[in-house]
Formats: sequence, C-alpha cells, structure tokens
Amino acid sequence: MFDRLIDHHCHGVTLAALDRAGFEALMSEAHRPGSPAFVSQFDKPLGLVLRRHCAPVLGLEPMASPEAYLARRMALGPTEASRRLLAAAGVSAMLIDSGHRADEILDCAGMAELAGVPSHEVVRIEAVFEAAAGQGDPLRAFAETLAARAATAVALKSVVAYRSGFAIEQTRPGAAELSVALARWQRACEAGRVRLEDPVLLRHALWVALELAAERRLPIQLHVGVGDRDVVMPRCDPGWFVPFIEEAEARGVPVMLLHCHPFERECAWMAEVWSNVHVDVGFTLNFTGPSALRPLRDLMEMAPFAKQLYSSDAFGLAELHLLGRVQFERALTRILADWIAAGDLPLAEAERIAAMIAWENAARVYELGQ
Amino acid sequence: MFDRLIDHHCHGVTLAALDRAGFEALMSEAHRPGSPAFVSQFDKPLGLVLRRHCAPVLGLEPMASPEAYLARRMALGPTEASRRLLAAAGVSAMLIDSGHRADEILDCAGMAELAGVPSHEVVRIEAVFEAAAGQGDPLRAFAETLAARAATAVALKSVVAYRSGFAIEQTRPGAAELSVALARWQRACEAGRVRLEDPVLLRHALWVALELAAERRLPIQLHVGVGDRDVVMPRCDPGWFVPFIEEAEARGVPVMLLHCHPFERECAWMAEVWSNVHVDVGFTLNFTGPSALRPLRDLMEMAPFAKQLYSSDAFGLAELHLLGRVQFERALTRILADWIAAGDLPLAEAERIAAMIAWENAARVYELGQ
Amino acid sequence: MFDRLIDHHCHGVTLAALDRAGFEALMSEAHRPGSPAFVSQFDKPLGLVLRRHCAPVLGLEPMASPEAYLARRMALGPTEASRRLLAAAGVSAMLIDSGHRADEILDCAGMAELAGVPSHEVVRIEAVFEAAAGQGDPLRAFAETLAARAATAVALKSVVAYRSGFAIEQTRPGAAELSVALARWQRACEAGRVRLEDPVLLRHALWVALELAAERRLPIQLHVGVGDRDVVMPRCDPGWFVPFIEEAEARGVPVMLLHCHPFERECAWMAEVWSNVHVDVGFTLNFTGPSALRPLRDLMEMAPFAKQLYSSDAFGLAELHLLGRVQFERALTRILADWIAAGDLPLAEAERIAAMIAWENAARVYELGQ
Repeated sequence: MFDRLIDHHCHGVTLAALDRAGFEALMSEAHRPGSPAFVSQFDKPLGLVLRRHCAPVLGLEPMASPEAYLARRMALGPTEASRRLLAAAGVSAMLIDSGHRADEILDCAGMAELAGVPSHEVVRIEAVFEAAAGQGDPLRAFAETLAARAATAVALKSVVAYRSGFAIEQTRPGAAELSVALARWQRACEAGRVRLEDPVLLRHALWVALELAAERRLPIQLHVGVGDRDVVMPRCDPGWFVPFIEEAEARGVPVMLLHCHPFERECAWMAEVWSNVHVDVGFTLNFTGPSALRPLRDLMEMAPFAKQLYSSDAFGLAELHLLGRVQFERALTRILADWIAAGDLPLAEAERIAAMIAWENAARVYELGQ
Repeated sequence: MFDRLIDHHCHGVTLAALDRAGFEALMSEAHRPGSPAFVSQFDKPLGLVLRRHCAPVLGLEPMASPEAYLARRMALGPTEASRRLLAAAGVSAMLIDSGHRADEILDCAGMAELAGVPSHEVVRIEAVFEAAAGQGDPLRAFAETLAARAATAVALKSVVAYRSGFAIEQTRPGAAELSVALARWQRACEAGRVRLEDPVLLRHALWVALELAAERRLPIQLHVGVGDRDVVMPRCDPGWFVPFIEEAEARGVPVMLLHCHPFERECAWMAEVWSNVHVDVGFTLNFTGPSALRPLRDLMEMAPFAKQLYSSDAFGLAELHLLGRVQFERALTRILADWIAAGDLPLAEAERIAAMIAWENAARVYELGQ
Repeated sequence: MFDRLIDHHCHGVTLAALDRAGFEALMSEAHRPGSPAFVSQFDKPLGLVLRRHCAPVLGLEPMASPEAYLARRMALGPTEASRRLLAAAGVSAMLIDSGHRADEILDCAGMAELAGVPSHEVVRIEAVFEAAAGQGDPLRAFAETLAARAATAVALKSVVAYRSGFAIEQTRPGAAELSVALARWQRACEAGRVRLEDPVLLRHALWVALELAAERRLPIQLHVGVGDRDVVMPRCDPGWFVPFIEEAEARGVPVMLLHCHPFERECAWMAEVWSNVHVDVGFTLNFTGPSALRPLRDLMEMAPFAKQLYSSDAFGLAELHLLGRVQFERALTRILADWIAAGDLPLAEAERIAAMIAWENAARVYELGQ
C-alpha cells in the first residue's frame, strides 16, 4: 500500500527480561500494580492482536497462548525478540519522545541501533522544565536547555493535556503571576513534588516553546485524549486549546494532535479548519485491536489527506511498534479499498493518498528530507 | 452463544392494562404526556424491533402492526403477555432497581415470581435518602435504612448523574456545609420539594453509601448518560467522576457504569484504566433498534472482556426485557463473528469471551455464586 | 427512494467567475486566505465526491481532475454551470438563510429563479440585530425589523452557537443588565465592532425571537457543532441549551438542530426526549464525502423518524446543493436497505420512512402545504 512509513511519535523499548506481570504492565496505560487477579491484559482487544501478529515473528503459530508467547520471548531474550519485532515493523524512520520514564527504555540512539533505521528526537517540554528544578534560575535554565535540546531535535512535545488539561487560560502569563507561581513550585520541589501541574508555569513553558518552535521551524506535538489515569478526559477536548493553536498558526508552527481518542471527529474537523493542525490516531489503533478500523474511519471522515500522519505511540514493548504498523496498514488499506469499491476513489489515486498519510506528510512537516 | 445470561440492571414491569397511550408512554424515556400527535413511539428504532421480536411471542407474525400488537396484548391480558415475554427473554437472574416509580411496577419478589428466575435487589441511594424526609434526624434515618436495605441487596445504585451531574466537588462534605445543606433541604421538604438535588447532600449520601459498600463488599452502580429530560448531558461525562471512582477503587468497591451512551468510548477507556470500573450499554441496545450493533461495537473497541456486563435496563414493559436479550445476543454474536472472520479471534475462544460478558463477570462482581 | 425532497436549510450560490483559489475557498468552512500550498481542497473527502458526482453534470467523466473540472466550469460560465447543478439536485423546495455574506450570493428570489423551484426565507436573528447598529433605539429597531421580516419567512435561525456557545445563562435578561450590555455594544459599534457576541444581548435577541416564533407559529433553527473557526466546540454541545429549548417546547415552537456534528448522538437523543426537537446532519454529509453514511447512521440510531429532516447547508457553490442530495439519498437508501436486509424493517415501510425524512416532516413543521 505504501513503500515507506514514518512513525512520527513513539518511545523506546525496554531490554529488561520481563516476567508476565512486567509484560502485562506494559500492555496497559494504567501503570499500576495491583490489577485485579481476574483481569489479564491479554483478555482485551490489544491482547488478541498481539497474539495474532507478534507470535509468528517469534516463530510461533498465530494466536499462541500468552504463556507460550512469553516463554518464547524469554527464551529468545528481550534483545533478540525486540530486534525481530522492530525489523518486522519495518518503519523507515522513527520520531522518539524520550521524556517519559527515560531510565527504563532505550534512548533515541539505542532505538536507531536496535531497529536499524534513522531515529529523530522529540523533546518533551514539561520534562525539560522539571529537570530545571533546583537550579538557581529555573526559568532561565529551562529556556536554555530547551533551546540546546532543540538544536538536534525535530519537534517539541507538550503533555499539558495530562497536567492542567486544555481548558485553561492560554495567554502568555505576566511577570507577576509567573513569579508567584514559580515560588510556589520551588517550595513544592523542596518538598519533593517536582511534577509541573501549575497552569501558569505550563503556559509559560508552552510560550517559550512556541517562540523557539517558530524560530527553529519545529512542529509542536500535543498529546490529546486517551492515556493513563492522570487524564481528566472532559478537559482534554482539544477544542479548548484553539487560542493557543491560533497563536501557533500565526507563527507558522504546525501543531500535531496525537491519538485524539475519543475526540477523533473533533480533531478531524480541526485539521479541516486550522491550517497548521495535523492529526493521527496513534495509540488508539493498538488498543482497539480488532476494531481499529473504526477510530481510523472517524479520523478519515473529514480530515484533509495532507494533514494526517502515522504513529504507533509504542512504549516499552517492541510488540507495540510492530502492531502499530500492522493495524495501521490493515485499517488504511481497508478504508481506501472501500472507497474504491464504492466508486468514490479512483484506483490510481489510492496509492498517492496512502503515501501522503504514511510518510510524505511527516517528511514535509518535520523536514526530514527524502 | 452463551448458556446463561444475567441481567445486572433492570426494573419491574407493570401489570396494568395499557391502552395505546399508556403503552407508548413506556416506550419512551421522555415520560411526559402531550407528545405531538405526529410522533408515534412505534415510528422509531425501538418500535421496529419491538414489532419484529415481540409479536411472535404473543402469537402474531413478525412486524405485526402496532394496532394488531396492542389488541393481541390486551386480549391476552398484561399478566399472561408479560409472563410469555419474560419467559422468552430467558435470563438466568435479574438484578432489580426498585427505587424508581416503585408503586407502578412489580417489586423484586413479584418479578422473580412472574419470570420464574432468581431476582436480587439493587438499592437506589437517593430514593432511600428522600424517604427519610420528615424524620427527626434524616441523615441518621438515611444511614440506618440504607444499612438495613443493604443487608438483603447485591448492590447500591446512584442516579447522581440525573441530579447534580458528575461535574461536582467529590470530597466528603464537612459538618458545617452539610448542616447548612440539610436545613435548606428540610425547608424545601416542608414545601413539598423532596427531590434530592443538592450537591452537598448528594455527596454525603454517596460517601455513606461508599463506606457501606466497602464494608459489605457491594458494588455501586452509576447511571451514566442517556435517560430522561432531567439529564444535563455535558455534565454526565463520567470522566468528571474519577475522584470518587478512585476513592471506591482504594476501598475495593467495584463501580458499574450503566448505559454509557453517548459516552461508550469514554467508559470503555475508563474500564481499561481503572481497576474497579465495569461497563454496559444497557438501555442503548433497545433504543437503537436496528443499529444496536454500533454502540456495542463502541464499548467493545477498548474495554477489557472481564469488565463488560449485560443489562436490559427494562422498565415497565416486559417487551423491553425480551428485547434487551435479543438485541444483546444479536450484537455480541455479530461482533465476535466478525472478529473470528477477520482472523483476530480464535473460534475456540469466542464462547469464553461471550460467557464472561453474558454472566460470569456479573456472577463474580455481585458474588451471586454459580 | 422518495418522490419529493425539501432542503430545509441552505444558502444562495455565487454567480461570480471563480478561479481555482476562489473555488477552493468555497470548498472549506475555514474562509481564510493563505491555506498552506500543500493543501488542496480537492484532497479531502469532499473533493472526491465533488469530482465524482458533479463532473458528469458538466459533461465530463466522473473523477475528472480538478483542473479539467474548473476549466469546464469556467467555459460553461458560472450561471449555466450552477443552473445545471441545481437542476440535477432536483429538490422540490429550498429554505434559504440569507443572513450570511448576503452580498456575495444570490438571495431567496434569485435562487428560486435559477433553480426553478419554490424557495422560502429563513431569517437569521443575529444578522437582523447587527443591522440595527446605529439606530436610535436598536432594541426596538431589531424587534420591529424581525417582526416585519418574519411576515414573509418560514423560520427564524440563530447562530448563538458561533457567538457565545450554548453554555450560557438562558433566562430572559433583566432590564438593568440589558441596558448595560446595550451601552457596551453601542460603544463597540462606534468603534466598528458590530458583531453580536455579548451573551446578554444574544439572550435578549433569542427571547424576542422566541415570542415572535410562538405568535407566528415559526420554528427556530439552531446551528449546532461544525462550522468555521469561530466555533468553540465544547461550548456547542446542544445539551447545554436545554433550558431555552424547554421554553420553546412550552410555547409549541419547534427547534431544528442543524448539522449536529460531532454531536449526532446527543442530538438524536434530544429528538427522542424533547417533543419539539428536530434534527438533520446537513453540512456533515458533504464534508464527510465517502464516509457520509456514518454520521447519518449516528443520527438514525435513536432519532424518531418524524423528527429527522434533510438539508444540504450548501453555501456559495451549486455543487454543494447537488452533493447534498446525492450524499443524502445514497446514505439513507443504504441504511434503510441494511435494516430491510437484517429483517428489522418491512420493505413496504421503507418508502414511508424515507418520505417522512425527505420532505413530509419539513412540510409539516414549516407548514409549507403540499
């Protein structure tokens, strides 16, 4: 369906030897020990497609049992298993957000080596801010580090959706409110609470990032919707974030809405209306398993073809990198085939549209070259 | 597809002789006289599937006209008609919320007798609170009655979604604000306005119920989304209620999200992320008639199989008990068949998943035994 | 499928000679110059169905290239091309909102002449209010003009969704707050900012319109959801507007929810519950192109058949009038055919339901006669 594929948003994998509990923990966004004993992470849509598509790559029959799969993975060793899965994924390039649980997973260079394909870094804005805790002038340290990191990155990313949500004031904060918020955060840091959740500081970080993005011609990625338990979903509707998106539009900065579930339709419409808005369904394709066609159909209902991208949002498990590709290719192929069959799309144009979504849009927006 | 079926949320039926207006009134959640003359409740999705599946049970051809159907129902008499319909529904057990318009419908024991299957009571928290109006110490009367009722119940249920909505403060109210709110409500009661809508009193009732549920190992059912005209839908997004759900999680109390329409996707994601969240589409399957496959697909996109349950949410008409089962069985069968056909689900595992959703999860959560 | 079709909400077309940029600008709700060069409005779902269905009407093969299509349209001239497209649309009557960019498009009489079918006027409430700027007593001028315009109109329409959104206080404003708001708006008008966005003035305008509508037996149309960049989508959920809708219900005034995307399910449920609520998916059918079946399926999941209507919401391009019809007829036919095939709808009743949605409901609500 397409001869190249750029994963414009994913994370590294772990090379730790995972027992069943450890493996299942990475099959969930919940990230908490103590799931009830009656819930196996294999007994959900993701579990089905994982057994189907990953087992053969490790030399088992499709739909091998969870026990057989994990035994085989352990026997191969995590490095070899991950290498095979990444090779099967066969993406042309990866854009890697290394700002989440970075000590547990491979970094950008490690992923490039393991997968044997170019990888590019995406800098997580809030992680850089938090790393400035304890500095004499944290705001200056943040700005300087962000600028330095951006020099070798292809994009900046914000998880403001997880912190304050999108339904916040979005103007650049004034000096007075900023200094009050900073002092409050510094006291919290001294007490060990470094996590950046203050809306004023988040706005400051976003504005510093926006001006840097404009200057360096970098897109800004925004986490939208589904994720772990930090999300207050009604505050994650990206429609609340239009004022900031319009500031980005005015500066020529592309905004990349990630995952978008369950706001696929809202995001597709935003991609139609705002010239800088781009969209993917990322994470959703893996976690909806046999039903992945549906969220992609939602996105493709209205989004312009030049505004859609592919991502796996894989984290931790190489399986998720492979599944992202398989799920995307199946769903995109089916949708375009249905359009052809209905007479709405010329056969000769399907490949052109698939290429735009699979890699051309990413290559253009992130200026990755050919 | 499954050999048992537990309806974990429904209501009693009426044995009154219903004329067309009375019957149509129970085909709608609107519960208001004076529907425009041009709207027949048979001219909607529910009307189509009712004529199709209920008419044969009363000895008519499928798709009998509304007139023929109602004449036949009247000729049989409401008791005999209801008995036939409930027998055709063939559920293994019913969990009955008897706290809504209880004087118009059969109670838990009456339903068990008419249907010939075990029935279990679900206690509606707000109804118990309202019944304490006029007591010398209503808060104490509420707590005592709730504890007494819980002794023979399998779950508690809240309709806070209908009253204040979910977008409220969710901490346990302090003594001072509670006493102010109580006094205000007592004055309202004296003026005849007993309905519990005050967020402070609702929070108090929920917290009393939560501690009782934790002590007695009872799940809490929460009405979510579609319902009658009391619902302010944007305030019904269950994402707003996560703080309370996390308090329940910390105490090991299962939370059962009912109906969930149009928040199926939000609820499916919550069942994936919070260990105590369970989901159904209840009411939605009947009221979407020929399209019932779609809301169930939405739920099954992401929800773990061990977190999904069946309910009819039938109220008043035995037809709704039968339709709930027919609609659920058709939709679930079709979804699993599609997954099998696509290669995403082994044929041998389909029955296991169907059994979990049809009855095993309910038997486990409500501790109903086998 | 149906022998008549009433487009109960659309706009006039332009007879200007459009170059590619001008034509593409009318293919988008974004209405802004400066779309990025990489985005052609033909490379989106609307572009595909436009090439498919409009090209043959102008004498080209289906799926003609954008270049060939625009060259042919230019050669025919905009008047002849528009005449052919409107003739192919073949609607029986049009209800035209002439209150948006009225100087660029044909008015109601012009459309009737060009299309050769009866057209009826819908008066945009906010446009009448804004036209009263600079009058000595703008409130009185508004009320008088609205009453005069209503004399020859079949409905009033509000775009409050675009201005304040629906999440506002909805009672009739008091004299004191009204006079403060009026004075503020008059100062803004003197500075050239005539646009009516003040919630107090919007409420006043709505209440004046509501009483007029009740007196004259006119429905009120409400824009809902998708549209241009003025929409703050989370504030457009029509669930927020129930208090006003209930005031309309109490006065017997039908409320027509237009487009409804992405709130199709919320709107379908509202049509089920409130006796005066009617719904369509208008604009959505054109802008979802090959996927138009999906939003119509969402609406038809729960909405009563007597509460659904057809509209194209076409603006500017006669192509959108034709596509509205083609998309609607395809989608409605397919949905009813699926219901028949599944055994849920008698073949003999499909035409009756189609006729209700295609024209009978509109003829009844707007009292258009036969």
